[in-house]
Amino acid sequence: MNFPSKLIENAVNEVSKLPGIGKKSALRVILYLLKQEEKSTENLSVALQTLRKEIKYCKKCYNISDDEICSICASKTRDNTILCIVESFKDIFAIENTAQFRGVYHVLGGLISPMDGIAPEDLHLDSITERIKELSVKEIILAVSPTMEGDTTAFYITKKLKELNLKITTLARGVPVGGELEYTDEITLGRSILSRINYD
Amino acid sequence: MNFPSKLIENAVNEVSKLPGIGKKSALRVILYLLKQEEKSTENLSVALQTLRKEIKYCKKCYNISDDEICSICASKTRDNTILCIVESFKDIFAIENTAQFRGVYHVLGGLISPMDGIAPEDLHLDSITERIKELSVKEIILAVSPTMEGDTTAFYITKKLKELNLKITTLARGVPVGGELEYTDEITLGRSILSRINYD
Repeated sequence: MNFPSKLIENAVNEVSKLPGIGKKSALRVILYLLKQEEKSTENLSVALQTLRKEIKYCKKCYNISDDEICSICASKTRDNTILCIVESFKDIFAIENTAQFRGVYHVLGGLISPMDGIAPEDLHLDSITERIKELSVKEIILAVSPTMEGDTTAFYITKKLKELNLKITTLARGVPVGGELEYTDEITLGRSILSRINYD
Repeated sequence: MNFPSKLIENAVNEVSKLPGIGKKSALRVILYLLKQEEKSTENLSVALQTLRKEIKYCKKCYNISDDEICSICASKTRDNTILCIVESFKDIFAIENTAQFRGVYHVLGGLISPMDGIAPEDLHLDSITERIKELSVKEIILAVSPTMEGDTTAFYITKKLKELNLKITTLARGVPVGGELEYTDEITLGRSILSRINYD
């Protein structure tokens, strides 16, 4: 694409670095901003920069947060006896939006992956035992992705926490709601038969 | 969607104002920026703000430009005797990318539309006659959209320029390249039969 202006070219290049935005969409975004008041470009830029500069990670659970302690850890209505262990704060977003969980979280910041050189020491694993004692946790939910890395990490954590004698659970594996049986992969379908549930 | 952080909520709201970006894509963009170096958010913000603040409109043709005079008007290799009249600078982008036109442009900044309260006085029409004389233009291409407003504007301009005795042309109407006959609308197909061309 040829641009009549270096300023536009530079802005298109920057915007098209974002995920899911190609050069054409970037140009559309920029032409839109040029049509709007100067204020709206400023608001956008300021919001992004403030976010990037001022975002913190919760000192307790490593969730993304505006303050030292995130709103979930600071809340008095959450059930501190159930601790949900997740890979990233994105998973907290996903789980919170289901409105099915009222416990607290712990973000690992990754999964054990020898292939990518990620060892247990690289994750936020040390503080888990302390938190379990501090919060008098009774149940641990291992909400990691059902992949090789997720399984390895889950296995490592269960071994590490064995002596604490906690109830350790993981997310149910099965046919996705709304999914069609014939298109479900064999492993998922196989597991969903093995761990079939009572029809009620 | 619930956000664990006001900063994220604010950024998502700003990003999702952009065309073609919903809340989910906005969140994806923001989580991407959080993973990158702080520098990349800064580069993006600075590029957008600089663009919005420093962009100019060419004093001759009203194209978008980094300087007082745009690169097309300033170029010595363009053919000043053909003047292409377009609605917006976006059309210049489109035509320039075809690499089929080496003349100069004139941006109207809109189309006559009584419904939207846009009168000929609201467009950059006054300077056309001056420019035609200054550049010794021999041909005018009316490259406006084939809509009611486009046709009205084209008609107004031809009447205005009648006494100058110029060659006035417009874009060919016809079947789009790669389009299928059976899906082409009747008016386009009808026109493409009326203005059929020699097969060579």
